[in-house]
Amino acid sequence: MYDPDFLLLVVDLIGTFVFAVEGALAGINAGLDVFGLLVLSFVTALGGGTIRDLLIGAIPPNSIRDWRYAATAFSGGIAVFCFHPLIERVPAQLMVTLDAAGLALFAVAGVGKALEFGITPLLAILMGAVTGAGGGTVRDVLLAQVPGVLHSDVYAAAALAGAIVVVAGIAAKLRRGWAMSMGAVVCFTLRMVAAWRHWNLPKVLVH
Amino acid sequence: MYDPDFLLLVVDLIGTFVFAVEGALAGINAGLDVFGLLVLSFVTALGGGTIRDLLIGAIPPNSIRDWRYAATAFSGGIAVFCFHPLIERVPAQLMVTLDAAGLALFAVAGVGKALEFGITPLLAILMGAVTGAGGGTVRDVLLAQVPGVLHSDVYAAAALAGAIVVVAGIAAKLRRGWAMSMGAVVCFTLRMVAAWRHWNLPKVLVH
Amino acid sequence: MYDPDFLLLVVDLIGTFVFAVEGALAGINAGLDVFGLLVLSFVTALGGGTIRDLLIGAIPPNSIRDWRYAATAFSGGIAVFCFHPLIERVPAQLMVTLDAAGLALFAVAGVGKALEFGITPLLAILMGAVTGAGGGTVRDVLLAQVPGVLHSDVYAAAALAGAIVVVAGIAAKLRRGWAMSMGAVVCFTLRMVAAWRHWNLPKVLVH
Repeated sequence: MYDPDFLLLVVDLIGTFVFAVEGALAGINAGLDVFGLLVLSFVTALGGGTIRDLLIGAIPPNSIRDWRYAATAFSGGIAVFCFHPLIERVPAQLMVTLDAAGLALFAVAGVGKALEFGITPLLAILMGAVTGAGGGTVRDVLLAQVPGVLHSDVYAAAALAGAIVVVAGIAAKLRRGWAMSMGAVVCFTLRMVAAWRHWNLPKVLVH
Repeated sequence: MYDPDFLLLVVDLIGTFVFAVEGALAGINAGLDVFGLLVLSFVTALGGGTIRDLLIGAIPPNSIRDWRYAATAFSGGIAVFCFHPLIERVPAQLMVTLDAAGLALFAVAGVGKALEFGITPLLAILMGAVTGAGGGTVRDVLLAQVPGVLHSDVYAAAALAGAIVVVAGIAAKLRRGWAMSMGAVVCFTLRMVAAWRHWNLPKVLVH
Repeated sequence: MYDPDFLLLVVDLIGTFVFAVEGALAGINAGLDVFGLLVLSFVTALGGGTIRDLLIGAIPPNSIRDWRYAATAFSGGIAVFCFHPLIERVPAQLMVTLDAAGLALFAVAGVGKALEFGITPLLAILMGAVTGAGGGTVRDVLLAQVPGVLHSDVYAAAALAGAIVVVAGIAAKLRRGWAMSMGAVVCFTLRMVAAWRHWNLPKVLVH
């Protein structure tokens, strides 16, 4: 009737598409050509999961094993290349919301996969943040910029919070699906509130 | 009488040497010391193949498993360090030609190895481009520059074209050696014509 | 009575802590927030060993498999965040000495582990340098800077020297513990003298 795995795949591919669009837009602003744009789509959308898979030993990583992820990421890049003026007109608020949804999904999927591969909870939580925020980090490195996630916004911290909820929920014997749903809601909500209120994490001031 | 594997190894090592020389020259221009120069030789020559091997699951990568690759890369770096004025006098046209030959060889070898490891054609083609252009990308990241391959020239795109020919040839039941030779010729020719005519890939203009 | 493995673990965690503190201090100077600071602690302390483990096939890497390394690295970052003025008052000479000790330990541990995994001596020596200097390299890449190790100081070269002593000692049938101790002493001494005399490696001058 209804297949939760298929639903999860669809949601995952939607997140991939959104992240790919954001990567391609960053590529255009940096003056990249169409090849560079597709590279940025790929690494922004799939870089985090690829690093996670290499680190937890899921090799080849999902992004290399299953062509649908690469195809989705490249579709996002091609859509930006072909319909750039249209995509620029998407309201910023909608992009932030879709991005927060992608972040939440990637974070809980990342911590879940790490736990399946027998990674210890502390590192599994980290793998959630790597899955959610790693792609944007690699994108910024390729653009020769200090990754935004290291100095601004509450972004990776929202992924960490969601991942902690997943681990805590599973430790409390919640059903896996429930723990992951709760984690995703926490991550999404925290990210949205942070974006709306322009929250930042504390810094050490150097005088 | 004549061993194709040995021939392939020799050609592969020549490509490694050429890429290593280019990496070391970039290191000199960036003011690196002799250690930095050797690092740039290694990553420029062997970085692409190393990333490919990690991604397709050929671990340890070839560059770590077979000392001849590292030795060749370091020879290229040492040659530049010792005979820099001489190497600077090599005509640019010859360097471009040798580089295009290295790119062609790396691209078809990369797609071939990915297919051997059971990678799906779309991703195997990407692995061809990663093998050919990945080393230069890591070199540029280490020099804190946006990788040239993302914004200028027809370089990785030539590698992609060659890799597509290999996959198409194998799908058309050509003998593997023929498919790879045709792919290399396509990549080499496209790269040479692009360098000669100063071709660039299209960009999205932002006003 | 006395367990050499436990001693080695303690020394390894001390090195991890020192490198993490240095990473966090670099993060503060670059204006990162508390999350960025923890990321820099982690990659500076554990990035080199993680790259080594991926390359030699020790997957998942030690940093992901054993939570004590991540916990130690994050403790270093948190200590810097909470007690920054105190840590700034640690004499520079003490930091350089602790760093040289960490470098020596990481280098000989790195070459030892690579040899255990069957890596050929030339590459095992390289893995020693990657273990010692790789974390600082990734830290500098994340800060969008050309890694200092590529252009200044005698740092990775000291790690290489120590690693060469280990390989030579083992080839000369010394006991493993002796070879590694001698390698560590050579690396530490070379690094300290180089820091004291402001030694640099030679460069090719471009006019």
